[in-house]
Amino acid sequence: MNDKEMLNAYKTRLEDYLDKLPITGAPEQLREAMRYSLLNGGKRLRGCLLLAACELGGGDAEAALPFAAALEMIHAYSLIHDDLPAMDNDTMRRGKPTNHVVFGEALAILAGDALLTHAVEIMAASGHPKAFHAMGEIIRAAGVGGMLAGQTLDVMNEGAEPDIALVKEIHKGKTAALLTAPLTAGLILAGAEERLVEAGRAYGFHLGMAFQIVDDLLDLEGDPALMGKTLGKDQEEGKLTWPACVGVELARKDAETHIHQAVEALAPFGEKAAFLRALALSTLHRAQ
Amino acid sequence: MNDKEMLNAYKTRLEDYLDKLPITGAPEQLREAMRYSLLNGGKRLRGCLLLAACELGGGDAEAALPFAAALEMIHAYSLIHDDLPAMDNDTMRRGKPTNHVVFGEALAILAGDALLTHAVEIMAASGHPKAFHAMGEIIRAAGVGGMLAGQTLDVMNEGAEPDIALVKEIHKGKTAALLTAPLTAGLILAGAEERLVEAGRAYGFHLGMAFQIVDDLLDLEGDPALMGKTLGKDQEEGKLTWPACVGVELARKDAETHIHQAVEALAPFGEKAAFLRALALSTLHRAQ
Repeated sequence: MNDKEMLNAYKTRLEDYLDKLPITGAPEQLREAMRYSLLNGGKRLRGCLLLAACELGGGDAEAALPFAAALEMIHAYSLIHDDLPAMDNDTMRRGKPTNHVVFGEALAILAGDALLTHAVEIMAASGHPKAFHAMGEIIRAAGVGGMLAGQTLDVMNEGAEPDIALVKEIHKGKTAALLTAPLTAGLILAGAEERLVEAGRAYGFHLGMAFQIVDDLLDLEGDPALMGKTLGKDQEEGKLTWPACVGVELARKDAETHIHQAVEALAPFGEKAAFLRALALSTLHRAQ
Repeated sequence: MNDKEMLNAYKTRLEDYLDKLPITGAPEQLREAMRYSLLNGGKRLRGCLLLAACELGGGDAEAALPFAAALEMIHAYSLIHDDLPAMDNDTMRRGKPTNHVVFGEALAILAGDALLTHAVEIMAASGHPKAFHAMGEIIRAAGVGGMLAGQTLDVMNEGAEPDIALVKEIHKGKTAALLTAPLTAGLILAGAEERLVEAGRAYGFHLGMAFQIVDDLLDLEGDPALMGKTLGKDQEEGKLTWPACVGVELARKDAETHIHQAVEALAPFGEKAAFLRALALSTLHRAQ
């Protein structure tokens, strides 16, 4: 399999798992609202990274599926809440109306809460011998020192003067945290030694930073038809973005630097890391 | 110590623990919004029940504090989201403006998300040998088959015809689930045998049902000054309540029946359960 086929194989496996999740005990309306955002054709980057990291560490990807699914649930919850009228007030995502547009605000808030809670539930129920340790990594990444720190700084600083230190903090929390957790959690599930988990952490961090800088650039210069969402909103809402601080050219260079650092971090894995290396390099050219 | 002093001792210990929680890594505004709702002078019933259940099972209440705190965080998050304009639109709680009135809707949504996430984080970081099992009980109670099922049915059925079967489902999820989890989790942390955990589960369920029926009655007949919140809102918003289905007299009787079933469930614990027995009986007379 080439890299693209491998990514598609991980994605198909994960989507199949997500689609079959019973979400036991949920009232029908809640299950429907959760599934609407969970199964909306995203890239599954976080989940696929976890499966790839687990196999890179010599682990069983099948047993890691609940953790890959949990990451996708946490990502989906964060997008539902982020899109709410009181937050970014987005009405379209990946070419479809956002959750609150379809189900109303009340159910959208609950569906977000439920996806976060269910993520923990399926990890707790996985029976994986490393479940507790891997879950700790994932929940810390989603927590007040990770994703929620980034979201808060993002929301609270709309309209603020461009400040690269602050943007770094926002991107680190909002994006890099949840792209780092799949690496560390996947390697932990595989029983990989500490130095390899830390190499994975460095890769995930730099990949995440590059990913968000490219996202900022695409919001400025992307093709709305390809992106499936409203573009130019960052500027309109006075969001702090990387290109707003350093300019488009330097932002592109910074994204490249982070990608090279991500690739360098993979050195301890040698040839086995070819897939993650290719995936990092492809980030620079996504949706373009 | 008499029962009231014992409850106060648990409460003081828990409040002290909550007040000193560092909430590491959180941006200042997020920490402030979280603490505003976490430290707002609630009864701490869920947390105190967990500490009492742990001691009833012969365990160490000190080591159980992160789990008692986690329950209070989950309760606080559910109230913040429940009070939002898109949900119950409440502006006062326990005599103070609600979270979104003080911090704005965006930060209130994030503070709720953060309290839920941080609850899991502190349980995962507790290092307690029974952490994973106890956490599973707590997160299931907060999940799509527990609290979130109740919240969804509650929100989705405003204005519906009174239906006692539906109200039972709502109360079971919305209130009883999070009053059952402290019993099962506390006993699990103590290493109590299965049949005692199940006795605790029955106690918590009946206590929770009685508690919510009394709550419905207080909303109809309580003293707003004593309750610290707007009363009569259930009726105004067309909420499904127990007295709306069966009348005030029968509702009072049903609450008594649940309390007697709660007390009966404590039989396997014998004399040691005096505190939980007294606490159940006091539920019938709260805030009156």
